[in-house]
Amino acid sequence: MVTGTKSLEVCLTPALLPLYNVENYIVVIIDIFRATSSICYGIENGAEAIIPVSEVEECAAYREKGMGYLLAAERNGEVVSGFDFGNSPFAYTPEKVAGKTVVLTTTNGTHALHLSRKAKRIVIGSFLNLTALSNWLKIQHESILLVCAGWKNNFNLEDTLFAGAVIEHLKEGKYKLDDPALAANDLYQLGKHDIGEYLQKTSHGERLKKLGIEKDIAFCLQVDLTTAIPVLEGEKLVKL
Amino acid sequence: MVTGTKSLEVCLTPALLPLYNVENYIVVIIDIFRATSSICYGIENGAEAIIPVSEVEECAAYREKGMGYLLAAERNGEVVSGFDFGNSPFAYTPEKVAGKTVVLTTTNGTHALHLSRKAKRIVIGSFLNLTALSNWLKIQHESILLVCAGWKNNFNLEDTLFAGAVIEHLKEGKYKLDDPALAANDLYQLGKHDIGEYLQKTSHGERLKKLGIEKDIAFCLQVDLTTAIPVLEGEKLVKL
Repeated sequence: MVTGTKSLEVCLTPALLPLYNVENYIVVIIDIFRATSSICYGIENGAEAIIPVSEVEECAAYREKGMGYLLAAERNGEVVSGFDFGNSPFAYTPEKVAGKTVVLTTTNGTHALHLSRKAKRIVIGSFLNLTALSNWLKIQHESILLVCAGWKNNFNLEDTLFAGAVIEHLKEGKYKLDDPALAANDLYQLGKHDIGEYLQKTSHGERLKKLGIEKDIAFCLQVDLTTAIPVLEGEKLVKL
Repeated sequence: MVTGTKSLEVCLTPALLPLYNVENYIVVIIDIFRATSSICYGIENGAEAIIPVSEVEECAAYREKGMGYLLAAERNGEVVSGFDFGNSPFAYTPEKVAGKTVVLTTTNGTHALHLSRKAKRIVIGSFLNLTALSNWLKIQHESILLVCAGWKNNFNLEDTLFAGAVIEHLKEGKYKLDDPALAANDLYQLGKHDIGEYLQKTSHGERLKKLGIEKDIAFCLQVDLTTAIPVLEGEKLVKL
């Protein structure tokens, strides 16, 4: 950790989380395509809670608990047979999720959450709740670590760009930025005028396009569609 | 690895090297402040070989081997007592190193080298040999992995910017770039007009300034001062 004042840092992938003492930070988990976007949208739309799990089997196990969970699981862009819906944010409408608890299968996002477990607090960020999240972060008296879920433990541009967007909101505050934060904010300067266009060139963007989820991508890049801030309480993400 | 064609990828820190099958790549090790800059300068100036080691003790052990090694070790910006010189590139002049084998203590650089051991080939890059290195890489028929030694296993801007500079030379070729490569090249666009100025803002730059090595930093940012390409053969870096 950078010392001397509150710091605002970016962990570029979950593989780098062991380098941080997460207990010193408020952690923001970022998995733009699509987990944290869907979570923000679902909590905004009245989901009582969202439980992120890593494996489809873990998700399916909630069916046995018999409490009317909604189960979300997807592999290769298709809803897994027997599940209620997949990972598309479009599934998280008020009609579907209000008052319900959703169990969501997400590999990268869950991994990042799990490794951040000891943080002072864990909240969820996406372009959907950018300003609400940033305004809340501004009034906290803690150092902040923006954790990019990335792609298979490596760096991706979309999560980093979002980290840069949060820094843009906070950088006039008295934070010490580390090198990844400086880089993320600089990349955001390059992409901010049309984030969708900027991300066209990424390998992950191409991969997602092949899955036929261009509409999801466009949805996830909408800024300030929501104001709810999901926060981790125990195993569940609930509204702050 | 990105598939389909030759790829040009950037590993942002040694902590992410386990995500790559290094045996599929020519690896370029990058540790701008100051190990790979000093190595390029030393090999250019006629050092017969440079042996990078992690620990001062390991370096000192070469004295026992009695073959007239030059020993370079530094801690907190000072030459360690009893050693021939520190890590400043200014020590690697023809008068001092021509015909000699230098044993160099470098933590981040050695770590990156060690983890890349199985690569098809390992070469050393710095701004000093940028064009010579890039021209050589261009005529290789292999995928290329630019490995940033980083700072204590985390991302730093100077190594990433150099990776972006190499990509600038190669990107018209038929390479597939991964997200870190795209980001590194974009950051290079922001910094290329005055890399020293751009790096002023980094935490590492501040740290190095405190050590009183501004001259070393300016030296390491000179482009194309040298043409030698150091390559790893066994334990030794020699001229390609």
